[in-house]
Amino acid sequence: MALSKKPTTGMSDILPAQMRVREYVKQVIRETYSAFGFTQIETPCVEPIENLTSKQGGDNEKLIFRILKRGDKFESAVQKIREGASEPAQDLVVDSGLRYDLTVPLVRFYANNSANLPSPFKALQMGNVWRADRPQRGRFRQFMQCDIDILGEPSNLAEIELIMATTTCLGKLGFQGFQVRINERRILKAMAAYAGFPEESYDSVFVTLDKMDKIGMDGVRAELLENGFTEAQVEKYLELFQGLESASDGLSYLAQTLGDFLEDGIRENLQEIMEAVSSVKTADYELLFDATLVRGMSYYTGTIFEVSLPQYGGSCAGGGRYDKMVGRFTGNDTPACGFSIGFERIVMILLEEGFEVPGAAGKKAYLIEKGVGGAQLSGIIAQAQKERAEGTQVLVVRMNKNKKFQKEQLQAEGYTDFTEFFKEG
Amino acid sequence: MALSKKPTTGMSDILPAQMRVREYVKQVIRETYSAFGFTQIETPCVEPIENLTSKQGGDNEKLIFRILKRGDKFESAVQKIREGASEPAQDLVVDSGLRYDLTVPLVRFYANNSANLPSPFKALQMGNVWRADRPQRGRFRQFMQCDIDILGEPSNLAEIELIMATTTCLGKLGFQGFQVRINERRILKAMAAYAGFPEESYDSVFVTLDKMDKIGMDGVRAELLENGFTEAQVEKYLELFQGLESASDGLSYLAQTLGDFLEDGIRENLQEIMEAVSSVKTADYELLFDATLVRGMSYYTGTIFEVSLPQYGGSCAGGGRYDKMVGRFTGNDTPACGFSIGFERIVMILLEEGFEVPGAAGKKAYLIEKGVGGAQLSGIIAQAQKERAEGTQVLVVRMNKNKKFQKEQLQAEGYTDFTEFFKEG
Repeated sequence: MALSKKPTTGMSDILPAQMRVREYVKQVIRETYSAFGFTQIETPCVEPIENLTSKQGGDNEKLIFRILKRGDKFESAVQKIREGASEPAQDLVVDSGLRYDLTVPLVRFYANNSANLPSPFKALQMGNVWRADRPQRGRFRQFMQCDIDILGEPSNLAEIELIMATTTCLGKLGFQGFQVRINERRILKAMAAYAGFPEESYDSVFVTLDKMDKIGMDGVRAELLENGFTEAQVEKYLELFQGLESASDGLSYLAQTLGDFLEDGIRENLQEIMEAVSSVKTADYELLFDATLVRGMSYYTGTIFEVSLPQYGGSCAGGGRYDKMVGRFTGNDTPACGFSIGFERIVMILLEEGFEVPGAAGKKAYLIEKGVGGAQLSGIIAQAQKERAEGTQVLVVRMNKNKKFQKEQLQAEGYTDFTEFFKEG
Repeated sequence: MALSKKPTTGMSDILPAQMRVREYVKQVIRETYSAFGFTQIETPCVEPIENLTSKQGGDNEKLIFRILKRGDKFESAVQKIREGASEPAQDLVVDSGLRYDLTVPLVRFYANNSANLPSPFKALQMGNVWRADRPQRGRFRQFMQCDIDILGEPSNLAEIELIMATTTCLGKLGFQGFQVRINERRILKAMAAYAGFPEESYDSVFVTLDKMDKIGMDGVRAELLENGFTEAQVEKYLELFQGLESASDGLSYLAQTLGDFLEDGIRENLQEIMEAVSSVKTADYELLFDATLVRGMSYYTGTIFEVSLPQYGGSCAGGGRYDKMVGRFTGNDTPACGFSIGFERIVMILLEEGFEVPGAAGKKAYLIEKGVGGAQLSGIIAQAQKERAEGTQVLVVRMNKNKKFQKEQLQAEGYTDFTEFFKEG
């Protein structure tokens, strides 16, 4: 078969200019989060297939890159297919797959290693994930995720630290005027219960509610009615949102209106998070309670949050509390809360804005004429080493025939200082 | 299926203590190589299957993790298997795989992007590769590789820069007394031709020669004879190595003895590399010409080199010139030369030596009594933010019931300074 110059469909080669920005962003993330006591960990990119198909990944489970069994195990699977086995062929030939997020691997990691981890455990992960999504602009089949999670902390200190760390990090990357929206799955449920929706249809109601910012109140009403909910339910539900629009303090309004539908302490918990975070902002942003915030994943059990960038549209970070997932691996529930930064989105915005990585060292290029060798070459190399030891970046290359073009190319890469060496004698 | 707590067979979870060392080593590598003008790039972990099975990866091609086609393409492949297709099943169901090294992807990257890259192009890659090797101590199925390559530089400036950069980097990581051994594929071939071995059996001869350090001269003699070479050939070959042992300058001895079997310029080229590198050592190491150095991969066309660590046994870096590989993708040969550092080996040695990452910032832990909330909590968070802004790493956690054990755990993580906050009023 002919060799392919193109990367695998939907995946990208990353050139030096983009790579510099990516490495800078990673460095800021690493430094900021470690100031908050997060420690970095890594899990394999390949996960056992049973962990990826355990219904914790929602629609992402439809997008898995599956990895073939090897050797005899593969051959015997093929034999079963030839003999007309009834199981789906892909279940027979596969034993693992590429991870589609960093949350499922983190929970497995914690279950596997918790005896050697402090409690609470504050984890930072930066790693690639893979999803066989339809390729489109700005969406890749391999992309970097960057998650912080706190495992073993039941109190809202987890939420406070996660929001503080994430907003500090975005601020350091130069983002301003962003919004942090916060909600609670249990408030979402209380509102649905208050309206009289049956419990088994909550997820469907939330899927519709999630579109509020796109289709508005009327669109939500139409879709809920279309989905077979009664007019009484839908109107009672939407009245809550109308009430919120005019309320000066949305959280108090809801607490008052929902009454016993809302468990004790939920409102106070959320209020404490918002107060603590607001009192020590380290970046220019707005913290809002937003009762229409849903977050897709069904594993969230409590607070949920999202960062949106009004200037650019869309969100650039999101997360929440998921207190039940560790228990799926260990049998014992462990409180867990995480916040994921949209690494690729942030890099794309910085590149579009023409962001320059600050504080790059001086860059010199030595151009050496063809034929320079022996002692003269050794001398030049020694000079380069001396400058490098003093902190200068020194590129040593042969002079091309077209020296002018070569210098232009190097200038485009940030080399401003050229030293030319010609053959002696 | 039950969830698996264990990572995929042969792959490892990386805990914070190891991760700190890994990140430090990556940082030293990045800084050192960028001082030499190398720029970082990245390719997808998933490569088109045809690139991984093009016979450029030697035995590594037997160890590929293959990725299943998806959707209709997979279903129609399964249909063909059911209908008794004659092609191997794995060729039918697969369209890509995990890369087993960084060299094949680099060459594809260069072929795909050379119009947007400077010439010569100095690339740094750090990334995971996967090999379905038999799992054993110190050998993993997912591991980090770290390669520098210079594409488009025909002169020995490439070799000089690669060896200087690699030895400088090892020195900065604290390695001393290591050996850099260097050889030339064309010297290996001239020696085999001089002995009278038929050209098609050179690779077999080199496989035996490669064992010299393990089985010695007698072992090599026995194996060559066993492989059917004549006594005259074998003796003439081994006389060269005996001659080398007593020669004061091995390279001159060989040039003299091999005569016309050795192309003009090869000796001078190697000598120039060795002189330039030796004249500006930036680390404590020995540079040696070693006529028994083979390097396994058949794609090498010229100089080859390897770094060995006598104190620890085995090698920790290797590389060479491979001028014919880019042409396989583009149709035009492009000079290429690379040096790969054994990242996992280096990390393992540092961990075994109890290496401590230098210059870690001060680490403080705030322990907050359960029940502390509201304004008091906000005040504590504000204080933490202030200390973080000043450069201190501050962990904010709830006080556990067993505070003594909690502090011991934190001390093991490097926290030396504890501040306790109790509920006021």
